[in-house]
Amino acid sequence: MIDLSVGYMAIIDNMNSINTIEWTGKSLRLLDQRKLPEAEIYLEISDPEGVAVAIKDMVVRGAPAIGVAGAFGVALAASKCVGLDISTCTQYIRNIAISIGDSRPTAVNLRSSVDRMLSILDKAGPSDHLYDLLLEEAIYIKDETFASDLRMAEFGSDIIPEGANVLTHCNTGPLATSGYGTAIGVIRRAWEIGKIKQVFATETRPWLQGARLTTWELKRLGIPFTLVVDSAAGHLMARGEVDCVVVGADRITANGDVANKIGTLGLAIMSNKLGIPFFVVAPRTTLDLASKNGDAIDIEERDPSEITDFMGKRITPYGINVRNLSFDVTPNNYIDAIVTDLGVASKPYIGSLRGLVGNG
Amino acid sequence: MIDLSVGYMAIIDNMNSINTIEWTGKSLRLLDQRKLPEAEIYLEISDPEGVAVAIKDMVVRGAPAIGVAGAFGVALAASKCVGLDISTCTQYIRNIAISIGDSRPTAVNLRSSVDRMLSILDKAGPSDHLYDLLLEEAIYIKDETFASDLRMAEFGSDIIPEGANVLTHCNTGPLATSGYGTAIGVIRRAWEIGKIKQVFATETRPWLQGARLTTWELKRLGIPFTLVVDSAAGHLMARGEVDCVVVGADRITANGDVANKIGTLGLAIMSNKLGIPFFVVAPRTTLDLASKNGDAIDIEERDPSEITDFMGKRITPYGINVRNLSFDVTPNNYIDAIVTDLGVASKPYIGSLRGLVGNG
Repeated sequence: MIDLSVGYMAIIDNMNSINTIEWTGKSLRLLDQRKLPEAEIYLEISDPEGVAVAIKDMVVRGAPAIGVAGAFGVALAASKCVGLDISTCTQYIRNIAISIGDSRPTAVNLRSSVDRMLSILDKAGPSDHLYDLLLEEAIYIKDETFASDLRMAEFGSDIIPEGANVLTHCNTGPLATSGYGTAIGVIRRAWEIGKIKQVFATETRPWLQGARLTTWELKRLGIPFTLVVDSAAGHLMARGEVDCVVVGADRITANGDVANKIGTLGLAIMSNKLGIPFFVVAPRTTLDLASKNGDAIDIEERDPSEITDFMGKRITPYGINVRNLSFDVTPNNYIDAIVTDLGVASKPYIGSLRGLVGNG
Repeated sequence: MIDLSVGYMAIIDNMNSINTIEWTGKSLRLLDQRKLPEAEIYLEISDPEGVAVAIKDMVVRGAPAIGVAGAFGVALAASKCVGLDISTCTQYIRNIAISIGDSRPTAVNLRSSVDRMLSILDKAGPSDHLYDLLLEEAIYIKDETFASDLRMAEFGSDIIPEGANVLTHCNTGPLATSGYGTAIGVIRRAWEIGKIKQVFATETRPWLQGARLTTWELKRLGIPFTLVVDSAAGHLMARGEVDCVVVGADRITANGDVANKIGTLGLAIMSNKLGIPFFVVAPRTTLDLASKNGDAIDIEERDPSEITDFMGKRITPYGINVRNLSFDVTPNNYIDAIVTDLGVASKPYIGSLRGLVGNG
């Protein structure tokens, strides 16, 4: 295991300038990602119901980050229990936890985070102060996410080719994890050790996580990058301008199938066909080993207005059919490595992933 | 050869309701495609220089349509010759023709159309009325484009599977050809004979030809369709929701390599990997048999503001690198058929395409 206690102060200081999720002492402070990069606006949320809405509306997004925000939401529920009897309070917290867990269906981190909070609730004795216990766990989940990002960055940067032009999709940096980043974390670390030539960031329709958020992060981090439309990836790959693809994940099943932002599957198929290494980076909390494969993953379909409208202005004709699929599932055979905070898994993933979790 | 003189009146009447390019008798009337679907605004252009600008700025776009518009632009140049001596006039027309031919680099139809106009100029005798000759040729090119579209629709609809869910990219309907459409023409005809279940239209970033124009056409034509983001194609294909892909082309080289809207290559690779038929539809004017393969095709890179801004509003941070690649090249091995107005070409395309042109 890597010693994370030394040598990371510079990285941590740098990272801290992006405050995705902060606990103020009595409320959750979220950087409103819907408004970036035009404005850095922070929303202070003290109602647990507000956390569920903020996750659903994508004030905060990214599988690890919504896991962290969800945990604080459950803690906030306990803060509302003053004057309630213990069973009413427990029921209230449980209801909030369910509603937060259901606010986005595809990423498994949110549910596993909420489940951890509920197991604290289950284990609490009658004299325990629930709010303190839950808040402590939420803070622990946030710190752990950060440390886990750093471990992935270390493991992942090892397998990035020297002098690489890396293509990434969606947003997987500090905004997506509230830590150091998953795929972007690997790219950051590889950049620091001189392995990255430049990054291609796809704009990531319809929400433009790449165009709005990844560009904003990479610019702050001083990593050279070029923004392209999603469908330019094939051209860049075919012309030899991409040495590897690095993406995050919202859910990884026991066999290594990966649910991630819509478009990931296409990138994986093209990489496979053109012989370009395709890497997935995600913490152990993204693993859903109870699911055999990706066939049954619930693919979120969001509001068509994300496609038909832009900044309140209508793009398309009215009265048309639209499907706003938010995720797709990449079969394990297109994936060359899955970088986790426990180490790097490779084919066949069924044994490799279980091995990492067993050792972890 | 199919007899086009009978049975098409209903189709023609329907088509005529989309007036992409019209000759008013003294000027060119263009439906401003930058404003669709919000508003149907027509621009009347009587200066040949204005035609070059309209093509460059995408008032009119689509390989066949810019070929037609370009021809009228050259004719308009002749209308400005009153009072000039013949050699000054000829030189002026020639300069205009060059500037129109250079206004978009990738589509070959524009250049071949301008070349046809110049060959009329070359053949004209000293007593000929240049304007009449050139205008006659421009009108002939427009009519021919229309007839050619109908022939492709007939040939192409034959190879569409029964009950097909068809995915198409960009815009290839009447707006793109000023006729019946290329890929959309095939889909229209296949729909009329009951072969189409529904169409998936990709939005086609950054210019949103799919979201704005194809939806507008399909809605008018009453063909059921669903709009998706470009990167949703992989998911739909992998889930068995796409039976074939039908796209247009901007240039086809002797070996069957196809330059078309950015994203086409990715669709072709995915189709190939997932066993989905991939068809290209383009008139003989799109053939560039002088080019051996697609390696040397000039890929237009348009202004980054098409990606960084939307409707005058900034999306991304300022001061970033952007590459706005407008086209990509699909190698012939990913293409299952090329439908032309001369018939359907198949692998190996080198012989098949030359055969069609030889017979044509």
